Amino acid sequence: MRLSRYFLPTLKDNPAEAQIASHRLMLRAGLVRQEAAGIYAWLPLGLRVLQRIERIVREELDRAGAIELLMPTLQLADLWRESGRYDAYGPEMLRIRDRHERELLYGPTNEEMVTAIVRAGVNSWRELPRNLYQIQWKFRDEQRPRFGVMRGREFLMKDGYSFDLDEAGARRSYQRMFVAYLRTFARLGVKAIPMRAETGPIGGDLSHEFIVLADTGESEVYCDRAVLDLAVPAADVDYGGDLEPVVRAWTSPYAATSDVHDPARYEAEVPEPRRLHTRGIEVGQVFYFGTKYSQPMRAQVAMPDGSARLLHGGSYGIGVSRLVGAIIEACHDDAGIAWPEPVAPFDVGVVDAKAGDAQTAAVCAQLVARLEAHGVDVLWDDTDARVGAKFANMDLIGLPWQLIVGPRGLAAGTVELKHRASGERFELAPDHAVARLADARPGRMTA
Amino acid sequence: MRLSRYFLPTLKDNPAEAQIASHRLMLRAGLVRQEAAGIYAWLPLGLRVLQRIERIVREELDRAGAIELLMPTLQLADLWRESGRYDAYGPEMLRIRDRHERELLYGPTNEEMVTAIVRAGVNSWRELPRNLYQIQWKFRDEQRPRFGVMRGREFLMKDGYSFDLDEAGARRSYQRMFVAYLRTFARLGVKAIPMRAETGPIGGDLSHEFIVLADTGESEVYCDRAVLDLAVPAADVDYGGDLEPVVRAWTSPYAATSDVHDPARYEAEVPEPRRLHTRGIEVGQVFYFGTKYSQPMRAQVAMPDGSARLLHGGSYGIGVSRLVGAIIEACHDDAGIAWPEPVAPFDVGVVDAKAGDAQTAAVCAQLVARLEAHGVDVLWDDTDARVGAKFANMDLIGLPWQLIVGPRGLAAGTVELKHRASGERFELAPDHAVARLADARPGRMTA
Repeated sequence: MRLSRYFLPTLKDNPAEAQIASHRLMLRAGLVRQEAAGIYAWLPLGLRVLQRIERIVREELDRAGAIELLMPTLQLADLWRESGRYDAYGPEMLRIRDRHERELLYGPTNEEMVTAIVRAGVNSWRELPRNLYQIQWKFRDEQRPRFGVMRGREFLMKDGYSFDLDEAGARRSYQRMFVAYLRTFARLGVKAIPMRAETGPIGGDLSHEFIVLADTGESEVYCDRAVLDLAVPAADVDYGGDLEPVVRAWTSPYAATSDVHDPARYEAEVPEPRRLHTRGIEVGQVFYFGTKYSQPMRAQVAMPDGSARLLHGGSYGIGVSRLVGAIIEACHDDAGIAWPEPVAPFDVGVVDAKAGDAQTAAVCAQLVARLEAHGVDVLWDDTDARVGAKFANMDLIGLPWQLIVGPRGLAAGTVELKHRASGERFELAPDHAVARLADARPGRMTA
Repeated sequence: MRLSRYFLPTLKDNPAEAQIASHRLMLRAGLVRQEAAGIYAWLPLGLRVLQRIERIVREELDRAGAIELLMPTLQLADLWRESGRYDAYGPEMLRIRDRHERELLYGPTNEEMVTAIVRAGVNSWRELPRNLYQIQWKFRDEQRPRFGVMRGREFLMKDGYSFDLDEAGARRSYQRMFVAYLRTFARLGVKAIPMRAETGPIGGDLSHEFIVLADTGESEVYCDRAVLDLAVPAADVDYGGDLEPVVRAWTSPYAATSDVHDPARYEAEVPEPRRLHTRGIEVGQVFYFGTKYSQPMRAQVAMPDGSARLLHGGSYGIGVSRLVGAIIEACHDDAGIAWPEPVAPFDVGVVDAKAGDAQTAAVCAQLVARLEAHGVDVLWDDTDARVGAKFANMDLIGLPWQLIVGPRGLAAGTVELKHRASGERFELAPDHAVARLADARPGRMTA
């Protein structure tokens, strides 16, 4: 993509309303634009990040046996009356009346609707277990939307739901999602730690939040540093097998949000040097809630003996749009964003260091064509901006690699490759730069 | 995908509420489920069709130089007051008040928001032209939602917007989208005919609707049969070149919706045997509207001489969710759907014709693994349903090919390959069946 034909409205100055780095950088780097309080348009560069996150989330859920569907954003109030949550939910639910005065709402979550779908579509014990998920926009009418997409009102969430015959099955479904979440966040390039958490309005008696450590996070957390060094299950993990040992390994070291923190246990179990009391950003949460929804909604299946059995459920969320902010909180410096390769909007930024020079332009064009032929996503700054402004812009938008083509290097037969996160620079022959970038493609590294 | 682990709640009986084939078949084949009047959940099989359509739409728009972004579903009422449309739009606009009594609306289209985005992000004539698009859910509060997803209230639309310096540039942008639409619909496997149309609430003085001919369509159309035989531009069409001849060729034969039909011209221009008076389904519309939005919203750029120039705009819609219904209207028979290969939810259905037979199960498993290794998407009916029910179900859901593995065939060293649309059947060695299906993958055929 040539920058001269792209739409990347970056900002020179720090927006006054942004209190945290990710909000500031998302506005400055032209990732989003606020359209109303807590409501954002995703500009082309931001949308690419969102789509890369979505793709990884889908791949890992599909691998774990979950099935994607897509529910509408608007729901009938009567559906939520079946579970009793319509009146209980409070002012965060956006309630709407249509032209015929029918009561609708903008879904903040989907336990009721998916339970109704499964109630209608699953009749026999033979058809269980099932795990259905969607990636869809939600709305929660926050009293005080803030921190950009981290606590917005309209937000993109992956919400998944498992249905089993009994508690033992439901716990296995919970474990599968727990493992899928470990893999998903690791592939996204962040370290998300599962922590015991309150179940809140979803209900149930078992829940973990997945939390990315960051000083600016809204959650106060206490954990054992041992959890930071645990290995994430590999791609060939057997989701049909016993995942209890993995979950046990990840839940044994103390890790809890302040809501459920137990100081006595913390001090007894965690030696002083391993205690970590910090803040974090919740990027996912998993719940087991049993028959909380199936009971009032009469969602049941016929058993082999003809009796009816209520479904045992769990639900599993990932904050897809919030993750963009969380990743930036974890991956930035004073100059701007430094995207982890798997979620970067482009893999490489090519900088023509001498606008108007026929030779640098020709070499850039060749390099871009060769990189794209290798499946590398390239943003080529072919504008006539000053070279200093180009470098600052590349650092701001944070593509993992920058490939700089200048007349001095070309005279010596080289181009410069800069690694954004480390700042390392390499003088290479153009062929070597192409080979190196083609080998480093995220697609190759995530298999 | 094994059917025994999938979620495909098909219906045996015709739903009483469905008046047209696509609505009936979408409910029966488990593609969608109605959640409220004109509001549907997309079940796994239906979502796969929607996603395949989205992918083709994206590829063709990107090829034509359009850039994807994503705007929120909810918008501020004040934004629509800038253009004057908030009061003009009428009861189809879903108006919402949030907890602070701020006026919002669920976007039925996005001319205002995208104009505001470009007004903020584009300052100079150098940054034009630009063409921005999104694929996002919209809401229009239809008085009488009907025909399933064909006239729903919450629907998925691709909406694109072009911005140019002058009318000549805007007409070139219009032509690029016109050609991209010809290619998009052809790749989706439908014949969509561009027809002169009214501009309606979008405004402007130039518009074409793209219409798929179908007896059940809501639009009455008059056209010259000559338009049915025109060639669609190839993938290497030069979007930077002069597209006027293509557009002229496609707009010269008479083709108009009843709103703008001119009987005198029709009879003068179209010889009797070529006259076609029928019905059709609008699946896309393109508009040129000049400065209709940029003028009230003061969206302008600086020209080389320092003067300000209002942007000249057009907008371009494709009814992505409606297309699922339109394609079914064009591609079905008494037994069910017959998907065009590029949009089919799976490429092949594998039928184990003797449930419980170890040999047929083993051969099915091998064939599925080999097909999937070739990138073919397979739905494997491994259930213990009667074979007649399996065949009826496969015909209903309409995958392009069925691969039937039975003990009699295996004894003779063959499997049966059935082409859904034509009903042709082939007895083949398993190797040949795999080779044939691998060659027929849609991915290969659309390049």
